[in-house]
Amino acid sequence: MDFPIIGVLGGMGPYAGLDLVSRIFDETRAASDREHLPVALLSYGHRITDRSGFVFGQTDINPGYAIAELALELERLGAAVGGIACNSAHAPVIFDLVQQKLRGRSIRILHLIGETVRFISETRPDACRIGCLSTYSVHQHGLYQHAVEAAGLEAILPADSVAEEVVHRAIYDPIFGIKAISNPCTEKAISLVRQAITHVQNRGADAVILGCTELPLAVPPATCTVCIDPARALARALIRETSPQKLKPLGGM
Amino acid sequence: MDFPIIGVLGGMGPYAGLDLVSRIFDETRAASDREHLPVALLSYGHRITDRSGFVFGQTDINPGYAIAELALELERLGAAVGGIACNSAHAPVIFDLVQQKLRGRSIRILHLIGETVRFISETRPDACRIGCLSTYSVHQHGLYQHAVEAAGLEAILPADSVAEEVVHRAIYDPIFGIKAISNPCTEKAISLVRQAITHVQNRGADAVILGCTELPLAVPPATCTVCIDPARALARALIRETSPQKLKPLGGM
Repeated sequence: MDFPIIGVLGGMGPYAGLDLVSRIFDETRAASDREHLPVALLSYGHRITDRSGFVFGQTDINPGYAIAELALELERLGAAVGGIACNSAHAPVIFDLVQQKLRGRSIRILHLIGETVRFISETRPDACRIGCLSTYSVHQHGLYQHAVEAAGLEAILPADSVAEEVVHRAIYDPIFGIKAISNPCTEKAISLVRQAITHVQNRGADAVILGCTELPLAVPPATCTVCIDPARALARALIRETSPQKLKPLGGM
Repeated sequence: MDFPIIGVLGGMGPYAGLDLVSRIFDETRAASDREHLPVALLSYGHRITDRSGFVFGQTDINPGYAIAELALELERLGAAVGGIACNSAHAPVIFDLVQQKLRGRSIRILHLIGETVRFISETRPDACRIGCLSTYSVHQHGLYQHAVEAAGLEAILPADSVAEEVVHRAIYDPIFGIKAISNPCTEKAISLVRQAITHVQNRGADAVILGCTELPLAVPPATCTVCIDPARALARALIRETSPQKLKPLGGM
Protein backbone atom coordinates (compact mmCIF):
# COMPACT_ATOMS: atom_id res chain seq x y z
CA MET A 1 0.00 0.00 0.00
CA ASP A 2 1.26 3.45 -0.85
CA PHE A 3 0.89 6.33 1.57
CA PRO A 4 1.11 10.08 0.83
CA ILE A 5 4.52 11.57 1.42
CA ILE A 6 5.01 13.85 4.43
CA GLY A 7 7.34 16.78 3.74
CA VAL A 8 9.54 18.37 6.38
CA LEU A 9 11.12 21.78 5.81
CA GLY A 10 14.29 21.57 7.88
CA GLY A 11 17.57 23.33 8.44
CA MET A 12 16.10 25.95 10.82
CA GLY A 13 18.16 24.69 12.75
CA PRO A 14 19.19 21.36 11.31
CA TYR A 15 18.60 19.30 14.45
CA ALA A 16 15.08 20.69 14.86
CA GLY A 17 14.21 19.24 11.43
CA LEU A 18 15.55 15.85 12.52
CA ASP A 19 13.61 16.05 15.75
CA LEU A 20 10.35 16.62 13.86
CA VAL A 21 11.02 13.63 11.60
CA SER A 22 11.86 11.53 14.65
CA ARG A 23 8.51 12.50 16.26
CA ILE A 24 6.69 11.45 13.07
CA PHE A 25 8.28 8.00 13.34
CA ASP A 26 7.51 7.88 17.09
CA GLU A 27 3.82 8.66 16.51
CA THR A 28 3.32 6.15 13.65
CA ARG A 29 1.78 2.74 14.16
CA ALA A 30 4.49 0.57 12.63
CA ALA A 31 6.00 -2.76 13.59
CA SER A 32 8.58 -2.89 10.80
CA ASP A 33 10.56 -0.59 8.51
CA ARG A 34 8.04 -1.08 5.69
CA GLU A 35 5.11 -0.03 7.85
CA HIS A 36 6.54 3.44 8.43
CA LEU A 37 5.23 6.42 6.49
CA PRO A 38 7.29 8.03 3.72
CA VAL A 39 8.95 11.23 4.88
CA ALA A 40 11.07 13.61 2.80
CA LEU A 41 13.28 16.04 4.72
CA LEU A 42 14.96 18.94 2.96
CA SER A 43 17.48 20.45 5.35
CA TYR A 44 18.50 23.47 3.31
CA GLY A 45 19.27 25.97 6.05
CA HIS A 46 21.96 27.62 3.88
CA ARG A 47 19.26 29.13 1.67
CA ILE A 48 17.07 30.56 4.42
CA THR A 49 17.75 33.90 6.06
CA ASP A 50 17.48 34.15 9.83
CA ARG A 51 13.83 34.18 10.95
CA SER A 52 14.32 36.09 14.20
CA GLY A 53 16.68 38.50 12.45
CA PHE A 54 14.04 39.33 9.85
CA VAL A 55 11.25 39.72 12.39
CA PHE A 56 13.45 42.17 14.32
CA GLY A 57 14.41 44.10 11.17
CA GLN A 58 18.08 43.03 11.17
CA THR A 59 17.79 41.73 7.60
CA ASP A 60 15.56 42.81 4.70
CA ILE A 61 15.14 39.42 3.02
CA ASN A 62 11.97 37.67 4.07
CA PRO A 63 12.87 34.00 4.69
CA GLY A 64 9.34 33.16 3.53
CA TYR A 65 10.51 33.26 -0.12
CA ALA A 66 13.07 30.49 0.43
CA ILE A 67 10.68 28.51 2.63
CA ALA A 68 8.02 28.59 -0.12
CA GLU A 69 10.61 27.37 -2.66
CA LEU A 70 11.44 24.45 -0.37
CA ALA A 71 7.74 23.65 -0.12
CA LEU A 72 7.51 23.57 -3.92
CA GLU A 73 10.45 21.15 -4.10
CA LEU A 74 8.64 18.93 -1.62
CA GLU A 75 5.50 19.19 -3.77
CA ARG A 76 7.49 18.06 -6.81
CA LEU A 77 8.65 15.06 -4.77
CA GLY A 78 5.00 14.25 -4.23
CA ALA A 79 4.52 15.56 -0.70
CA ALA A 80 0.88 16.20 0.16
CA VAL A 81 1.55 18.15 3.35
CA GLY A 82 4.54 19.88 4.88
CA GLY A 83 5.65 21.06 8.29
CA ILE A 84 8.21 23.74 9.12
CA ALA A 85 10.46 22.79 12.03
CA CYS A 86 10.90 26.33 13.33
CA ASN A 87 8.67 28.41 15.60
CA SER A 88 9.85 31.82 14.40
CA ALA A 89 9.00 30.94 10.79
CA HIS A 90 5.36 31.03 11.86
CA ALA A 91 5.41 34.76 12.55
CA PRO A 92 2.64 36.13 10.29
CA VAL A 93 5.06 38.33 8.32
CA ILE A 94 6.87 35.13 7.21
CA PHE A 95 4.17 32.46 7.23
CA ASP A 96 1.61 34.61 5.38
CA LEU A 97 4.12 35.11 2.56
CA VAL A 98 4.67 31.34 2.37
CA GLN A 99 0.92 30.77 2.14
CA GLN A 100 0.58 33.47 -0.52
CA LYS A 101 3.34 31.91 -2.64
CA LEU A 102 1.70 28.49 -2.36
CA ARG A 103 -1.79 29.64 -3.33
CA GLY A 104 -3.26 27.24 -5.89
CA ARG A 105 -0.59 24.58 -5.25
CA SER A 106 -1.40 21.13 -3.97
CA ILE A 107 0.96 21.02 -0.98
CA ARG A 108 -0.50 22.25 2.31
CA ILE A 109 1.77 23.59 5.04
CA LEU A 110 0.36 22.87 8.49
CA HIS A 111 0.78 25.51 11.17
CA LEU A 112 3.06 24.50 14.05
CA ILE A 113 1.55 26.93 16.53
CA GLY A 114 -2.08 26.37 15.53
CA GLU A 115 -1.56 22.60 15.76
CA THR A 116 -0.01 22.98 19.20
CA VAL A 117 -3.08 24.76 20.53
CA ARG A 118 -5.33 22.14 18.93
CA PHE A 119 -3.19 19.42 20.55
CA ILE A 120 -3.66 21.03 23.97
CA SER A 121 -7.45 21.02 23.52
CA GLU A 122 -7.30 17.29 22.66
CA THR A 123 -4.81 16.14 25.29
CA ARG A 124 -5.40 18.60 28.11
CA PRO A 125 -9.08 19.63 27.86
CA ASP A 126 -8.87 20.52 31.56
CA ALA A 127 -6.10 23.08 31.03
CA CYS A 128 -7.32 26.69 30.79
CA ARG A 129 -4.20 28.64 31.70
CA ILE A 130 -1.39 27.92 29.27
CA GLY A 131 2.20 28.94 29.94
CA CYS A 132 4.08 30.07 26.84
CA LEU A 133 7.88 29.76 26.84
CA SER A 134 9.84 30.60 23.69
CA THR A 135 12.72 32.53 22.22
CA TYR A 136 12.59 36.24 22.89
CA SER A 137 11.41 37.01 19.34
CA VAL A 138 8.47 34.60 19.51
CA HIS A 139 7.70 35.94 23.00
CA GLN A 140 7.87 39.59 21.92
CA HIS A 141 5.58 38.94 18.96
CA GLY A 142 3.13 36.97 21.08
CA LEU A 143 2.89 34.07 18.60
CA TYR A 144 1.78 31.51 21.17
CA GLN A 145 -0.06 34.08 23.24
CA HIS A 146 -2.33 35.11 20.36
CA ALA A 147 -3.03 31.51 19.29
CA VAL A 148 -3.84 30.45 22.86
CA GLU A 149 -6.14 33.43 23.35
CA ALA A 150 -7.85 32.88 19.99
CA ALA A 151 -8.77 29.40 21.27
CA GLY A 152 -10.47 30.96 24.29
CA LEU A 153 -7.71 29.99 26.71
CA GLU A 154 -5.68 32.20 28.98
CA ALA A 155 -2.02 32.73 28.04
CA ILE A 156 0.37 32.85 30.98
CA LEU A 157 3.54 34.63 29.91
CA PRO A 158 6.80 34.82 31.78
CA ALA A 159 7.87 38.23 33.02
CA ASP A 160 9.88 40.01 30.32
CA SER A 161 13.00 39.68 32.45
CA VAL A 162 12.50 35.90 32.71
CA ALA A 163 11.82 35.60 28.96
CA GLU A 164 15.07 37.39 28.24
CA GLU A 165 17.40 36.47 31.10
CA VAL A 166 16.24 32.91 31.76
CA VAL A 167 14.61 31.34 28.68
CA HIS A 168 16.52 33.18 25.95
CA ARG A 169 19.83 32.71 27.75
CA ALA A 170 19.18 29.00 28.24
CA ILE A 171 18.80 28.74 24.46
CA TYR A 172 21.41 31.17 23.16
CA ASP A 173 24.19 31.58 25.73
CA PRO A 174 27.40 30.81 23.81
CA ILE A 175 28.97 28.98 26.77
CA PHE A 176 26.19 26.87 28.26
CA GLY A 177 23.17 27.48 25.99
CA ILE A 178 21.27 24.66 24.28
CA LYS A 179 22.18 25.86 20.77
CA ALA A 180 25.86 25.59 21.74
CA ILE A 181 25.72 22.32 23.71
CA SER A 182 22.80 19.92 23.49
CA ASN A 183 24.05 16.36 23.56
CA PRO A 184 23.59 16.35 26.49
CA CYS A 185 22.54 19.85 27.57
CA THR A 186 24.48 21.59 30.32
CA GLU A 187 23.22 21.52 33.92
CA LYS A 188 22.98 25.30 33.76
CA ALA A 189 20.67 25.29 30.72
CA ILE A 190 18.48 22.54 32.20
CA SER A 191 18.25 24.44 35.46
CA LEU A 192 17.23 27.69 33.69
CA VAL A 193 14.52 25.96 31.65
CA ARG A 194 13.15 24.28 34.78
CA GLN A 195 13.21 27.64 36.55
CA ALA A 196 11.15 29.19 33.73
CA ILE A 197 8.61 26.34 33.83
CA THR A 198 8.20 26.82 37.60
CA HIS A 199 7.89 30.58 37.07
CA VAL A 200 4.88 30.29 34.72
CA GLN A 201 3.39 27.58 36.94
CA ASN A 202 3.65 29.97 39.88
CA ARG A 203 1.80 32.50 37.73
CA GLY A 204 -1.03 29.98 37.39
CA ALA A 205 -0.19 27.90 34.26
CA ASP A 206 -1.58 24.35 34.33
CA ALA A 207 0.16 23.39 31.05
CA VAL A 208 3.36 24.84 29.61
CA ILE A 209 4.22 25.09 25.91
CA LEU A 210 7.93 24.58 25.22
CA GLY A 211 7.64 26.91 22.22
CA CYS A 212 11.19 26.71 20.91
CA THR A 213 12.64 23.61 19.30
CA GLU A 214 15.59 23.73 21.71
CA LEU A 215 13.63 23.69 24.98
CA PRO A 216 12.49 20.01 24.83
CA LEU A 217 16.15 19.02 24.47
CA ALA A 218 16.83 20.38 27.96
CA VAL A 219 13.60 19.18 29.57
CA PRO A 220 12.18 16.23 27.60
CA PRO A 221 8.37 16.43 27.77
CA ALA A 222 8.33 12.77 28.87
CA THR A 223 9.98 13.96 32.10
CA CYS A 224 7.63 16.92 32.61
CA THR A 225 3.92 16.17 32.88
CA VAL A 226 2.80 19.78 32.41
CA CYS A 227 4.96 20.35 29.31
CA ILE A 228 3.61 20.49 25.75
CA ASP A 229 6.00 19.77 22.84
CA PRO A 230 4.94 21.57 19.63
CA ALA A 231 7.03 19.18 17.48
CA ARG A 232 4.95 16.26 18.73
CA ALA A 233 1.75 18.19 17.99
CA LEU A 234 2.92 18.97 14.44
CA ALA A 235 4.13 15.41 13.86
CA ARG A 236 0.72 14.03 14.85
CA ALA A 237 -1.04 16.58 12.64
CA LEU A 238 1.11 15.62 9.63
CA ILE A 239 0.13 11.96 10.11
CA ARG A 240 -3.52 12.82 10.77
CA GLU A 241 -3.75 14.83 7.53
CA THR A 242 -2.20 12.12 5.36
CA SER A 243 -2.67 8.65 6.89
CA PRO A 244 -4.92 8.96 9.97
CA GLN A 245 -5.18 5.18 10.31
CA LYS A 246 -1.42 5.14 11.04
CA LEU A 247 -1.63 7.61 13.93
CA LYS A 248 -0.91 6.07 17.33
CA PRO A 249 -3.62 6.65 19.91
CA LEU A 250 -2.74 9.42 22.36
CA GLY A 251 -0.67 8.19 25.26
CA GLY A 252 -0.60 4.67 23.84
CA MET A 253 1.29 2.49 21.45
CA MET B 1 27.82 30.29 -1.21
CA ASP B 2 26.04 27.23 -2.48
CA PHE B 3 27.20 23.74 -1.56
CA PRO B 4 26.38 20.45 -3.31
CA ILE B 5 23.46 18.59 -1.81
CA ILE B 6 24.16 15.42 0.17
CA GLY B 7 21.54 12.71 -0.35
CA VAL B 8 20.59 10.17 2.29
CA LEU B 9 18.66 7.03 1.39
CA GLY B 10 16.74 6.29 4.57
CA GLY B 11 13.91 4.20 5.90
CA MET B 12 16.07 1.07 6.39
CA GLY B 13 15.15 1.46 9.32
CA PRO B 14 13.86 4.98 9.65
CA TYR B 15 15.92 5.95 12.71
CA ALA B 16 19.16 4.78 11.05
CA GLY B 17 18.53 7.34 8.28
CA LEU B 18 18.08 10.06 10.89
CA ASP B 19 21.21 8.96 12.67
CA LEU B 20 23.27 9.30 9.49
CA VAL B 21 21.91 12.81 8.88
CA SER B 22 22.65 13.71 12.48
CA ARG B 23 26.27 12.55 12.06
CA ILE B 24 26.60 14.70 8.93
CA PHE B 25 25.56 17.74 10.99
CA ASP B 26 27.90 16.70 13.83
CA GLU B 27 30.89 16.43 11.48
CA THR B 28 30.30 19.77 9.69
CA ARG B 29 32.17 22.94 10.56
CA ALA B 30 29.23 25.28 11.18
CA ALA B 31 28.57 27.97 13.74
CA SER B 32 25.05 28.80 12.57
CA ASP B 33 22.08 27.25 10.75
CA ARG B 34 23.16 28.83 7.46
CA GLU B 35 26.65 27.35 7.64
CA HIS B 36 25.34 23.78 7.62
CA LEU B 37 25.43 21.72 4.44
CA PRO B 38 22.26 20.95 2.48
CA VAL B 39 21.02 17.43 3.13
CA ALA B 40 18.03 15.71 1.52
CA LEU B 41 16.70 12.62 3.30
CA LEU B 42 14.19 10.34 1.59
CA SER B 43 12.86 7.94 4.21
CA TYR B 44 10.82 5.68 1.95
CA GLY B 45 11.13 2.36 3.76
CA HIS B 46 7.64 1.32 2.58
CA ARG B 47 8.98 0.85 -0.95
CA ILE B 48 12.03 -1.24 -0.07
CA THR B 49 11.86 -4.98 0.49
CA ASP B 50 13.72 -6.42 3.46
CA ARG B 51 17.47 -6.56 2.79
CA SER B 52 18.29 -9.47 5.09
CA GLY B 53 15.24 -11.36 3.86
CA PHE B 54 16.40 -11.06 0.26
CA VAL B 55 19.98 -12.06 1.04
CA PHE B 56 18.64 -15.15 2.82
CA GLY B 57 16.27 -16.01 -0.03
CA GLN B 58 13.07 -15.29 1.90
CA THR B 59 11.88 -12.84 -0.78
CA ASP B 60 12.52 -12.73 -4.53
CA ILE B 61 12.43 -8.98 -4.99
CA ASN B 62 15.90 -7.44 -4.94
CA PRO B 63 15.64 -4.24 -2.81
CA GLY B 64 18.36 -2.80 -5.05
CA TYR B 65 15.71 -1.79 -7.62
CA ALA B 66 13.88 0.43 -5.14
CA ILE B 67 17.13 1.75 -3.68
CA ALA B 68 18.30 2.80 -7.16
CA GLU B 69 14.97 4.58 -7.77
CA LEU B 70 15.46 6.51 -4.53
CA ALA B 71 18.95 7.47 -5.66
CA LEU B 72 17.52 8.81 -8.92
CA GLU B 73 14.99 10.91 -7.01
CA LEU B 74 17.86 12.33 -5.00
CA GLU B 75 19.73 13.04 -8.23
CA ARG B 76 16.70 14.95 -9.55
CA LEU B 77 16.78 17.02 -6.35
CA GLY B 78 20.35 17.89 -7.20
CA ALA B 79 22.22 15.52 -4.90
CA ALA B 80 25.81 14.91 -5.99
CA VAL B 81 26.45 11.98 -3.66
CA GLY B 82 24.31 9.63 -1.65
CA GLY B 83 24.69 7.32 1.31
CA ILE B 84 22.56 4.32 2.24
CA ALA B 85 21.89 4.08 5.97
CA CYS B 86 21.76 0.27 6.09
CA ASN B 87 24.58 -2.24 6.34
CA SER B 88 22.76 -5.16 4.72
CA ALA B 89 22.00 -3.08 1.61
CA HIS B 90 25.74 -3.24 0.92
CA ALA B 91 25.70 -6.98 0.27
CA PRO B 92 27.09 -7.31 -3.29
CA VAL B 93 23.88 -8.91 -4.60
CA ILE B 94 22.04 -5.69 -3.68
CA PHE B 95 24.68 -2.98 -3.96
CA ASP B 96 25.98 -4.18 -7.34
CA LEU B 97 22.48 -3.93 -8.78
CA VAL B 98 22.19 -0.36 -7.46
CA GLN B 99 25.49 0.55 -9.10
CA GLN B 100 24.43 -1.08 -12.35
CA LYS B 101 21.14 0.86 -12.41
CA LEU B 102 23.01 4.11 -11.77
CA ARG B 103 25.61 3.61 -14.49
CA GLY B 104 25.99 6.83 -16.46
CA ARG B 105 24.10 8.91 -13.90
CA SER B 106 25.67 11.82 -12.05
CA ILE B 107 24.87 10.76 -8.48
CA ARG B 108 27.52 8.63 -6.77
CA ILE B 109 26.57 6.29 -3.93
CA LEU B 110 29.39 5.96 -1.42
CA HIS B 111 29.96 2.54 0.14
CA LEU B 112 29.25 2.39 3.89
CA ILE B 113 31.48 -0.60 4.50
CA GLY B 114 34.35 0.53 2.29
CA GLU B 115 34.29 3.96 3.92
CA THR B 116 34.36 2.37 7.36
CA VAL B 117 37.55 0.48 6.56
CA ARG B 118 39.08 3.65 5.10
CA PHE B 119 38.08 5.51 8.28
CA ILE B 120 39.87 2.92 10.41
CA SER B 121 43.06 3.35 8.41
CA GLU B 122 42.85 7.13 8.96
CA THR B 123 41.85 7.18 12.61
CA ARG B 124 43.42 3.97 13.92
CA PRO B 125 46.51 3.35 11.77
CA ASP B 126 47.89 1.30 14.68
CA ALA B 127 44.96 -1.16 14.60
CA CYS B 128 45.65 -4.39 12.69
CA ARG B 129 43.09 -6.75 14.17
CA ILE B 130 39.57 -5.50 13.58
CA GLY B 131 36.57 -6.94 15.40
CA CYS B 132 33.45 -7.14 13.24
CA LEU B 133 30.05 -7.11 14.99
CA SER B 134 26.87 -7.02 12.93
CA THR B 135 23.48 -8.59 12.32
CA TYR B 136 23.61 -12.30 11.62
CA SER B 137 23.06 -11.78 7.87
CA VAL B 138 25.96 -9.34 7.52
CA HIS B 139 28.07 -11.69 9.67
CA GLN B 140 27.15 -14.79 7.64
CA HIS B 141 27.98 -13.03 4.38
CA GLY B 142 31.24 -11.67 5.74
CA LEU B 143 30.61 -8.12 4.51
CA TYR B 144 32.91 -6.46 7.00
CA GLN B 145 35.27 -9.42 7.10
CA HIS B 146 35.98 -9.26 3.35
CA ALA B 147 36.42 -5.48 3.32
CA VAL B 148 38.77 -5.58 6.31
CA GLU B 149 40.82 -8.38 4.75
CA ALA B 150 40.92 -6.62 1.36
CA ALA B 151 42.58 -3.71 3.17
CA GLY B 152 45.30 -6.05 4.46
CA LEU B 153 43.96 -6.13 8.01
CA GLU B 154 42.94 -9.11 10.07
CA ALA B 155 39.23 -9.58 10.71
CA ILE B 156 38.34 -10.84 14.18
CA LEU B 157 34.90 -12.39 14.08
CA PRO B 158 32.77 -13.44 17.01
CA ALA B 159 32.08 -17.13 17.41
CA ASP B 160 28.95 -18.06 15.45
CA SER B 161 27.11 -18.68 18.71
CA VAL B 162 27.97 -15.16 19.93
CA ALA B 163 27.00 -13.62 16.58
CA GLU B 164 23.60 -15.30 16.81
CA GLU B 165 22.84 -15.53 20.53
CA VAL B 166 24.44 -12.32 21.74
CA VAL B 167 24.69 -9.72 18.95
CA HIS B 168 21.67 -10.70 16.90
CA ARG B 169 19.50 -11.09 20.00
CA ALA B 170 20.60 -7.71 21.35
CA ILE B 171 19.33 -6.20 18.10
CA TYR B 172 16.21 -8.24 17.35
CA ASP B 173 14.81 -9.68 20.59
CA PRO B 174 11.15 -8.58 20.62
CA ILE B 175 11.16 -7.92 24.38
CA PHE B 176 14.48 -6.23 25.11
CA GLY B 177 16.15 -5.84 21.70
CA ILE B 178 17.36 -2.49 20.35
CA LYS B 179 14.92 -2.53 17.43
CA ALA B 180 12.05 -2.87 19.92
CA ILE B 181 13.29 -0.41 22.58
CA SER B 182 16.00 2.13 21.90
CA ASN B 183 15.22 5.38 23.65
CA PRO B 184 16.90 4.44 25.91
CA CYS B 185 18.03 0.87 25.24
CA THR B 186 17.35 -1.81 27.82
CA GLU B 187 20.03 -2.82 30.33
CA LYS B 188 19.88 -6.32 28.86
CA ALA B 189 20.64 -5.13 25.30
CA ILE B 190 23.45 -2.86 26.47
CA SER B 191 24.93 -5.70 28.49
CA LEU B 192 24.82 -8.09 25.50
CA VAL B 193 26.50 -5.61 23.16
CA ARG B 194 29.23 -4.95 25.75
CA GLN B 195 29.66 -8.70 26.17
CA ALA B 196 30.16 -9.09 22.40
CA ILE B 197 32.70 -6.25 22.30
CA THR B 198 34.68 -7.90 25.11
CA HIS B 199 34.42 -11.24 23.32
CA VAL B 200 36.13 -9.99 20.13
CA GLN B 201 38.65 -8.04 22.22
CA ASN B 202 39.50 -11.28 24.02
CA ARG B 203 40.01 -12.80 20.58
CA GLY B 204 42.60 -10.11 19.87
CA ALA B 205 40.68 -7.20 18.32
CA ASP B 206 42.23 -3.79 18.91
CA ALA B 207 39.33 -1.93 17.24
CA VAL B 208 35.70 -3.05 16.96
CA ILE B 209 33.32 -2.14 14.14
CA LEU B 210 29.72 -1.71 15.35
CA GLY B 211 28.49 -2.92 11.96
CA CYS B 212 24.75 -2.57 12.45
CA THR B 213 23.01 0.77 12.74
CA GLU B 214 21.39 -0.34 16.01
CA LEU B 215 24.58 -1.23 17.92
CA PRO B 216 25.84 2.35 18.50
CA LEU B 217 22.47 3.15 20.11
CA ALA B 218 23.27 0.66 22.90
CA VAL B 219 26.96 1.53 23.22
CA PRO B 220 27.61 5.07 21.94
CA PRO B 221 31.09 5.10 20.35
CA ALA B 222 31.90 8.18 22.44
CA THR B 223 31.74 5.88 25.48
CA CYS B 224 33.81 3.10 23.92
CA THR B 225 37.32 4.00 22.76
CA VAL B 226 37.84 0.83 20.70
CA CYS B 227 34.51 1.15 18.86
CA ILE B 228 34.16 2.29 15.24
CA ASP B 229 30.81 3.73 14.09
CA PRO B 230 30.22 3.18 10.35
CA ALA B 231 27.60 5.97 10.24
CA ARG B 232 30.25 8.46 11.34
CA ALA B 233 32.65 7.14 8.69
CA LEU B 234 30.00 7.48 5.97
CA ALA B 235 28.93 10.93 7.18
CA ARG B 236 32.52 12.16 6.98
CA ALA B 237 32.95 10.62 3.52
CA LEU B 238 29.78 12.36 2.25
CA ILE B 239 31.16 15.71 3.42
CA ARG B 240 34.66 14.97 2.10
CA GLU B 241 33.31 14.16 -1.38
CA THR B 242 31.18 17.30 -1.62
CA SER B 243 32.53 20.09 0.59
CA PRO B 244 35.86 18.97 2.08
CA GLN B 245 36.53 22.43 3.50
CA LYS B 246 33.48 21.96 5.76
CA LEU B 247 34.74 18.69 7.30
CA LYS B 248 35.69 18.97 10.95
CA PRO B 249 39.20 17.78 11.75
CA LEU B 250 39.24 14.32 13.27
CA GLY B 251 38.73 14.36 17.02
CA GLY B 252 38.32 18.13 17.00
CA MET B 253 35.75 20.85 16.57
